[in-house]
Amino acid sequence: MKVNGQHIQTISGNHVLGVVEVIDQTLLPFAFVLKTIKNYQEMVVAIQTMQVRGAPLIGAAAAYGIALAASAQADLAVAANVLKASRPTAVNLAWAVDRVMQVLSSLPAGQKVEAAWHEADKIAQEDVLQNKRIAQHGLALIKDALALRERQANMQRAQLNILTHCNAGWLATVDYGTALAPIYAAHDAGLPVHVWVDETRPRNQGASLTAWELAAHGVPHTVIADNAGGHLMQHGQVDMVIVGADRVTRTGDVCNKIGTYLKALAAYDNQIPFYAAVPSPTIDWHMRDGMREIPIEIRDADEVAYMQGISANGYVERVRVIPHESEACNPAFDVTPARLVTGIITEHGVFAPQQLQEMEHA
Amino acid sequence: MKVNGQHIQTISGNHVLGVVEVIDQTLLPFAFVLKTIKNYQEMVVAIQTMQVRGAPLIGAAAAYGIALAASAQADLAVAANVLKASRPTAVNLAWAVDRVMQVLSSLPAGQKVEAAWHEADKIAQEDVLQNKRIAQHGLALIKDALALRERQANMQRAQLNILTHCNAGWLATVDYGTALAPIYAAHDAGLPVHVWVDETRPRNQGASLTAWELAAHGVPHTVIADNAGGHLMQHGQVDMVIVGADRVTRTGDVCNKIGTYLKALAAYDNQIPFYAAVPSPTIDWHMRDGMREIPIEIRDADEVAYMQGISANGYVERVRVIPHESEACNPAFDVTPARLVTGIITEHGVFAPQQLQEMEHA
Repeated sequence: MKVNGQHIQTISGNHVLGVVEVIDQTLLPFAFVLKTIKNYQEMVVAIQTMQVRGAPLIGAAAAYGIALAASAQADLAVAANVLKASRPTAVNLAWAVDRVMQVLSSLPAGQKVEAAWHEADKIAQEDVLQNKRIAQHGLALIKDALALRERQANMQRAQLNILTHCNAGWLATVDYGTALAPIYAAHDAGLPVHVWVDETRPRNQGASLTAWELAAHGVPHTVIADNAGGHLMQHGQVDMVIVGADRVTRTGDVCNKIGTYLKALAAYDNQIPFYAAVPSPTIDWHMRDGMREIPIEIRDADEVAYMQGISANGYVERVRVIPHESEACNPAFDVTPARLVTGIITEHGVFAPQQLQEMEHA
Repeated sequence: MKVNGQHIQTISGNHVLGVVEVIDQTLLPFAFVLKTIKNYQEMVVAIQTMQVRGAPLIGAAAAYGIALAASAQADLAVAANVLKASRPTAVNLAWAVDRVMQVLSSLPAGQKVEAAWHEADKIAQEDVLQNKRIAQHGLALIKDALALRERQANMQRAQLNILTHCNAGWLATVDYGTALAPIYAAHDAGLPVHVWVDETRPRNQGASLTAWELAAHGVPHTVIADNAGGHLMQHGQVDMVIVGADRVTRTGDVCNKIGTYLKALAAYDNQIPFYAAVPSPTIDWHMRDGMREIPIEIRDADEVAYMQGISANGYVERVRVIPHESEACNPAFDVTPARLVTGIITEHGVFAPQQLQEMEHA
């Protein structure tokens, strides 16, 4: 997508220099800074500190991590393990590392470096293509919902209000995004979409990343506290929910940013369709029970205790928002059971959660 | 309750000096500052800016507002209207103003000032007594839940985890609190209670006020993002939810801080009891349908766009947390339908929402 008129992707590998360039997403929305990653250890830190984040993007980042390790003649098995352990919840991370390692396993030593960079590039390019297809499948849902809205409003031009949680936009992927891809496609097609952006405490990916993306592309949007979505749904102000996911089980359970489950409950209670948009590498075909099987990352309590923003004098500052005597707890994801999910939007089409398995060998 | 070893209430009227002393709650948890309110116009500002907040407390504050107006020989009808309009959602505000005005209506001019201060004092004292009774009725529920927990854990000593949203502690009332009153009683009785404190964006009354209160009293507690409660409930880490309310309809619909509805949905989905603790002046006997009838205050969008905390150098600072190009929206309350509510804890006992009407003439 474009930043200040220039097309940019969230990650790009440079085989010749042996470096990877990423956007430092911890500084957005107040500073847009590119960061050069020079070895796989730096990539691990970038993933852990969420300078790169979003399930599809950390998949590509980990693949480039193996390429960096290969260029440095590091022990690839060690690098693979460290990269896979850098964050536990998104399945794309292990999927991407395993895929590159699989390609390298059959090659002679002299060909591994080039093959690693090539495979990482391929993973990144595939993500872009998958997201373009997700955009088209999701766009069809938006068009249908708008047509329904206009029939209800006696053919008056109606606005479609879509609620999203966290950031599943182009910043969470290599490009275009997952949950936001259909929204960008709808906006670009001239359809009147408006996005309710959940702030997404504690790390505020909605308020900082989703709002920034949508503003940069000119998509009408409004930031709300995570608490507000249920009330808006009760009052007919939300027509559809679209979120991304970090892992989807073969049975259609959706693991996504903490708080997603609460919005799915409210959508269900108010008969509002709830979709997760994911490329196929986000589906874990080995898991059947998301609540029991998916490991939920517990992140540093300081992410709850502190909040980052820009001060009146223009500096990015961090303020403590709980008493010094109090503790905090920070589970980073939750699991929305399949029974609350209307559909999974993938590059192969939209599937009811019970029908997701039909896609396994697509 | 005690602050630094000294017993203090949130509000106290001084008839002789003609002033009212309150705690400026916008500065907590990082500064404890008492503020002297000298006329009813200052009381209106204190209510609107939430220096005093919480349905029971703003009821008492508005009653003292009439007393201040009487002392100043102001037009009481004007003062009553301005005070009642200062915030729309909590019913206690109008209830308290009407009660004082009713008493004054039959009195000769020379007796109005003293009667106004006397009636405001009475409203404040009644709130304290009501909350003490709420504490006892809620304590019985906590004891039952603990006994159940211990049977499940084979008579091992079990901890009871109670989740609360926003602040319905002593700071929200004249003293003792509503939702927190049973928790203080349980803690003081030596029962092992632990409180999950919802941060409660956008104004963070949970992270700043509830956490501060509980820490000051030594009650074990953990602050969580508003997004986390559903996940904790799914994993058996919440035994009970107790919240306060700004208005409860005769049919048992509960209007409380934005986000309460989402926690009620999650409690219901996980078979966890969900209680609202309210003194009877919070019940609006005129309303039957909370979602259609209760006016929901829309507060300044800047409460979402900015966040207040303490900086590394010890100053209370305000930082912007959304892009300058983005807008925000800030509905302050939502309505939890009676079907999701296990019981209403009042000074007269615990009522199923359908049985609340039995209390009307109690």
